[in-house]
Amino acid sequence: MSMDQKKQTAKAWFEELRDQICASYETLEDDYAGPFKDQPAGRFERTAWDRKNEDGSPGGGGVMSVMKGRLFEKVGVNVSTVFGTFKPEFAKNIPGAAEDPRFWASGISLVAHPHSPHVPAAHMNTRFIVTTKGWFGGGGDLTPTFPDDRDTADFHDAFKQACDRHDPVYYPKFKKWCDEYFYIKHRNEPRGVGGIFYDNLEKDWDADFVFTKDVGQAFRDIYPALIRRHMDKGWTAEERDALLHKRSRYVEFNLIYDRGTLFGLKTGGNIDAIFMSLPPEVKWG
Amino acid sequence: MSMDQKKQTAKAWFEELRDQICASYETLEDDYAGPFKDQPAGRFERTAWDRKNEDGSPGGGGVMSVMKGRLFEKVGVNVSTVFGTFKPEFAKNIPGAAEDPRFWASGISLVAHPHSPHVPAAHMNTRFIVTTKGWFGGGGDLTPTFPDDRDTADFHDAFKQACDRHDPVYYPKFKKWCDEYFYIKHRNEPRGVGGIFYDNLEKDWDADFVFTKDVGQAFRDIYPALIRRHMDKGWTAEERDALLHKRSRYVEFNLIYDRGTLFGLKTGGNIDAIFMSLPPEVKWG
Repeated sequence: MSMDQKKQTAKAWFEELRDQICASYETLEDDYAGPFKDQPAGRFERTAWDRKNEDGSPGGGGVMSVMKGRLFEKVGVNVSTVFGTFKPEFAKNIPGAAEDPRFWASGISLVAHPHSPHVPAAHMNTRFIVTTKGWFGGGGDLTPTFPDDRDTADFHDAFKQACDRHDPVYYPKFKKWCDEYFYIKHRNEPRGVGGIFYDNLEKDWDADFVFTKDVGQAFRDIYPALIRRHMDKGWTAEERDALLHKRSRYVEFNLIYDRGTLFGLKTGGNIDAIFMSLPPEVKWG
Repeated sequence: MSMDQKKQTAKAWFEELRDQICASYETLEDDYAGPFKDQPAGRFERTAWDRKNEDGSPGGGGVMSVMKGRLFEKVGVNVSTVFGTFKPEFAKNIPGAAEDPRFWASGISLVAHPHSPHVPAAHMNTRFIVTTKGWFGGGGDLTPTFPDDRDTADFHDAFKQACDRHDPVYYPKFKKWCDEYFYIKHRNEPRGVGGIFYDNLEKDWDADFVFTKDVGQAFRDIYPALIRRHMDKGWTAEERDALLHKRSRYVEFNLIYDRGTLFGLKTGGNIDAIFMSLPPEVKWG
């Protein structure tokens, strides 16, 4: 496959996964019978955005799909395909960009913030990035306010199965990477209960692509299953308050440490798409 | 005056200013007759904290004064006096620290987040930092949800008067520095309506100290005057919502750009004191 075919194949998959996930979450909204059941079921709204390079030339763009529903306080699924030239000080930290600062990147990024403190928040992202090198990265992780051992075990197991189909070293390596990446150093606490995180995967394009699809499919299937376990249960004001405070850690992580946020800000991404990850309502202190 | 006397003199002033300001804000809580007047008037609670250096040796500490009242949703006044050794990669960016990485720093930092969308949020900080050099820095700025021309003019004028007593170049220079410093680049918008910002002031210790006192006193006097203009007025749910969204920009600025936050995180400061600036309730999107 030519590099151009690889790019188009990856991009098409990210968009297909987006469609599958959005349909699944709209079904969850329909099936929901929790405290806000008298409100209408949410539906995704799509907004396309264009990216321009600093010299004014076209730099790709993306589509944000955002739903504010009765189960999902806010869930955003962003697909974007962008290209341009890294600035020199940024290029030196990107594999293969020191030689030639041009880049192309496509990916799907999802963040879900449910209303209920009993339904975990979740994040998933997979991407294909091309410089003089070309690699996949991504992962998924879970952020419950009140961790549930069965949820945590099943979430990890879903990724373990996806990983083990490809390479026995993947799961332990990528789980550890996730724990390290999503650690809030200044708080000495993890952002959530983990999942997997991988980056710079460039072994064999076809195998790497199938693995990346498997990661996306694992997340696509397990998260709704966890949601259904808890979505109809009520909560107290204290439990909601605990959720709002838990979300403040999420904001701290994303604004201080997150690589994707930094990548977006440094490459002139769409600010609404970059900050789609931020929770709709948050409390500190 | 010996350097030791200068340190003690600066520290004592920051603590005296803290006492004056806290007393003034408690009076505002007493005098308040707005929508939450049936709640008890707020009072500051003080919490002392100790800082340890990485090698376990004492590194100073501070006292946080926090009030959650009926006028002030949250106001924090932190005084801290810390000392230790900068890490090499941090030292190279601090004046006078490349030669000798030891530092001493004392300061007062204040952030006020009123409940009412009609009462502006405000920030003030002054500090004395000693490496092989010794300099003052600080400033104050105002963040209204709905800017009021008279408030803005009077706030700027208070600082202009303080500046003009010392040097005619101060006000235009420090006002511009404030506008540049508190600019949220990724949003292409200022954090608020400005004020003044200065740093690395090391001309003449006595004059610099009196100037720094004048800056603190100007803020001490003007902010309560602005608060009294608006504090008893009611607001709509839409206006409150606008405040909560405005606060999200404040969080973005503080976590992505703020030098004081970075300084605190890099020097092992007290996390509650560092994040005292974050608003109690925030909305995104």
